[in-house]
Amino acid sequence: MNTKLVIKVISILLLIIAGFMIFPVFFAVYYGEFHMIRFFLIPITASLLFYITIKIFISDRQRKNLSTKDGFLLVASSWISASFLGCLPFFLSGAVPSLADAFFETMSGFTTTGASILTEIESLPKSLLFWRSLTHWLGGMGIVVLTVAIFPLLGIGGLQLIKAEAPGPTVDKITPKITETAKILWMIYIALTIIETILLLAGGLNLFDSLTHTFGTLATGGFSPKNTSVGFYNSPFVDWVITIFMLMAGINFILYFKLVTGQLKSIMRNSEFKAYLGIFAAATLIVTLNLHGKTYTTFADSLRYAGFQVSSILTTTGFATADYEKWPMLSQIILFVVMFIGGCSGSTGGGIKVIRIITLFKQGINEMKLLIRPRGIFSIRIDGKVVRKQLVYAVSGFVLLYIFLLLLTTTVVASGEYDIVTSLSTALVTLGNIGPGFGLIGPTENYSFYQDYIKWFLSFAMMAGRLEIYTVLVMLLPAFWRR
Amino acid sequence: MNTKLVIKVISILLLIIAGFMIFPVFFAVYYGEFHMIRFFLIPITASLLFYITIKIFISDRQRKNLSTKDGFLLVASSWISASFLGCLPFFLSGAVPSLADAFFETMSGFTTTGASILTEIESLPKSLLFWRSLTHWLGGMGIVVLTVAIFPLLGIGGLQLIKAEAPGPTVDKITPKITETAKILWMIYIALTIIETILLLAGGLNLFDSLTHTFGTLATGGFSPKNTSVGFYNSPFVDWVITIFMLMAGINFILYFKLVTGQLKSIMRNSEFKAYLGIFAAATLIVTLNLHGKTYTTFADSLRYAGFQVSSILTTTGFATADYEKWPMLSQIILFVVMFIGGCSGSTGGGIKVIRIITLFKQGINEMKLLIRPRGIFSIRIDGKVVRKQLVYAVSGFVLLYIFLLLLTTTVVASGEYDIVTSLSTALVTLGNIGPGFGLIGPTENYSFYQDYIKWFLSFAMMAGRLEIYTVLVMLLPAFWRR
Repeated sequence: MNTKLVIKVISILLLIIAGFMIFPVFFAVYYGEFHMIRFFLIPITASLLFYITIKIFISDRQRKNLSTKDGFLLVASSWISASFLGCLPFFLSGAVPSLADAFFETMSGFTTTGASILTEIESLPKSLLFWRSLTHWLGGMGIVVLTVAIFPLLGIGGLQLIKAEAPGPTVDKITPKITETAKILWMIYIALTIIETILLLAGGLNLFDSLTHTFGTLATGGFSPKNTSVGFYNSPFVDWVITIFMLMAGINFILYFKLVTGQLKSIMRNSEFKAYLGIFAAATLIVTLNLHGKTYTTFADSLRYAGFQVSSILTTTGFATADYEKWPMLSQIILFVVMFIGGCSGSTGGGIKVIRIITLFKQGINEMKLLIRPRGIFSIRIDGKVVRKQLVYAVSGFVLLYIFLLLLTTTVVASGEYDIVTSLSTALVTLGNIGPGFGLIGPTENYSFYQDYIKWFLSFAMMAGRLEIYTVLVMLLPAFWRR
Repeated sequence: MNTKLVIKVISILLLIIAGFMIFPVFFAVYYGEFHMIRFFLIPITASLLFYITIKIFISDRQRKNLSTKDGFLLVASSWISASFLGCLPFFLSGAVPSLADAFFETMSGFTTTGASILTEIESLPKSLLFWRSLTHWLGGMGIVVLTVAIFPLLGIGGLQLIKAEAPGPTVDKITPKITETAKILWMIYIALTIIETILLLAGGLNLFDSLTHTFGTLATGGFSPKNTSVGFYNSPFVDWVITIFMLMAGINFILYFKLVTGQLKSIMRNSEFKAYLGIFAAATLIVTLNLHGKTYTTFADSLRYAGFQVSSILTTTGFATADYEKWPMLSQIILFVVMFIGGCSGSTGGGIKVIRIITLFKQGINEMKLLIRPRGIFSIRIDGKVVRKQLVYAVSGFVLLYIFLLLLTTTVVASGEYDIVTSLSTALVTLGNIGPGFGLIGPTENYSFYQDYIKWFLSFAMMAGRLEIYTVLVMLLPAFWRR
């Protein structure tokens, strides 16, 4: 393995992330939180020193090629080291006095989960809350590039499926083309950020609130600087803007590239996109009808709250405009079922992802057809293209490991003596990078009460979920560390 | 399709099942319940008339060969028609006035689920309770033959795995050999029945109690004629006998054949058997340690209650000696996780089954190895033999459909406005043929409160779970009904 190069790349990454800490410093100045500035300057200086040290000790004439194993090592250690760096402002300032808490909050940010250990969010310095939301935005940016450009190359659990979907700048090898793809994706991400921010400003939010909520939306993160999340504004306009932008963030970013280049037909033919919208529409419809007349009197209100919450859970964002734990049970179960799905591949959304659900569903049907005609040959077609058997395998393996980790996480949480709903939904929403769940971690609650060992394990679960599970688990294999 | 032959076979099957109604008649006479006799004689007469009618109208010179499609049709319609016939004594006698309830109870019996709609079990006539337990025994007998002899031929969801395991009388085609295999399996089943009955008699139970509990045990059913299930006897000896016999009922019956023929080495090499015992031991150990000092003062008591309940849930029996909903949460979650596993293939146990869990676990590890060495060739070995890729597919497809049906059933139950724990665990324990779950259907509760449409759907879920899902779902495909 080329550990030296991995460390080098990480030192650069940390420097970039630390560079973004300049933005919360601006807000510290603007809001007069001068005492906060040093807590951002310390990690900036630290990462700079780290970068220089590495630059001195690891020569530039290092081998430039990264093996697949290095790729895995790089991805996982990026998220871990970024979370350690990113948690420093929380920890050093004393705003979050426990390291387990500060690390959990930052990992939750970078993984775009949105699970929080904060009980009284609004009492925190604005600059810190801005940094908190910025971790979402940076994590979302990172994950789009990873899933579209790097994961398919690493062959992660069936994500090669989206490779066939890649537009103009096709990704074949780790070549300069990745930089090109990354640039286009970032431009789309930044454009969407600007548009949503403007819309939220138009909805009456100040710049701080608009930006932080935009970060939470586009990263499908879910951190809000308000204690009552998006519900604080109680504005149909704001709700609908965020509903639509959450949905947009859950779509494969390659489709935006196609939209810009006028490949409308190709978008309309995309199975994952259609299934995703179909699931959203069906779930929203059931919840709306279930809420109407029971929880909300008008149909418009029922639709607004249902649409928002389904979008928030399906895309794995985790914003809330209502305490859905007070909704009728059918609505709650629909949200629970939707937690198993997640966004589209190549989006900032987490979870199992729609493309995998489609693949396995078609595979299930094929297996049944095979029972009727044992000698028949049935292949799975997605977007008109035959899916290689190898990919179906990878997808099956992924879903199994997902369920295995889900039950393991549930058990670890339950060891702290929490009820089934709390334990299971905690596992589901951390692994799926959603954020709020049911029971003690409902939309009006937070994760502060968990024991430290559970918080560390959940940080691991959030990372495993975000990095498509395989990336993290593969390093637990002894074979990984063998030459 | 050869519908005529299917109907003919069913008419014979119903006559055989009705023949077994003679036994409850004996108990009716013994316990002086003379008013009950006619409620058994009516279905006996009805099935005899049906058999004669079919015999007259469908000639014996009918084509004798059943296609694969006929096989599926036969299996599913056997369970449905048997449940309609079997529910007549409950319904006609007025002991269970609702048809939905009577059908649910009987389907629960034949599928060896053990979920009951009875609130006051002990107030029912003994003869009826005997019939209730006898449906377990018959269902268990049927399922062993189906899974060992018929399902592998139909290619049901990876159950061909156990084909390679078949002993002396190997199953290759639908030939007289099936009759031979069936005979051996039934002899083993009857031998185990006699041994357990004698042990329970030795434990102080009367013949009625011994037989009914033996039926519930060996079929991994769980119906008890006592309101408080096996907990009624409060005897360590009885608890341990039933614990061990439940475990034995969850083992592939082919292993008993090997035991008798002295193939001990082959038993010790059986991966599913070893994994099954390993899961039992690990789960029991965790629960025992968790209960010790909290729920029970002595270690012996903790082990006894833990062993019984883990065995009961893992084997999908559903007997109870304690209200495990009052246990510490970790123990409850262990039971909840175990609900996802189930017994061994070729046993009377339900659920996903250990062999499938092993296969997919190995597949998951293989997929990870493939990430490290993309050009490597990794095959799954079970009991030293390479598993065909096609089977891994079938197993993946099965598990996916299982989870899909699980979430669908959860949603249907929740539509009646039940909480998440109740809805989810109802789905889990009906589909897995376990019986009691958590929430409103805990070990001290029953299913009587559910709306009729939920009871009908759960009857369907129990059948789907029992018949390896594919058998039932395949008939929902339009392709099934095409020529």
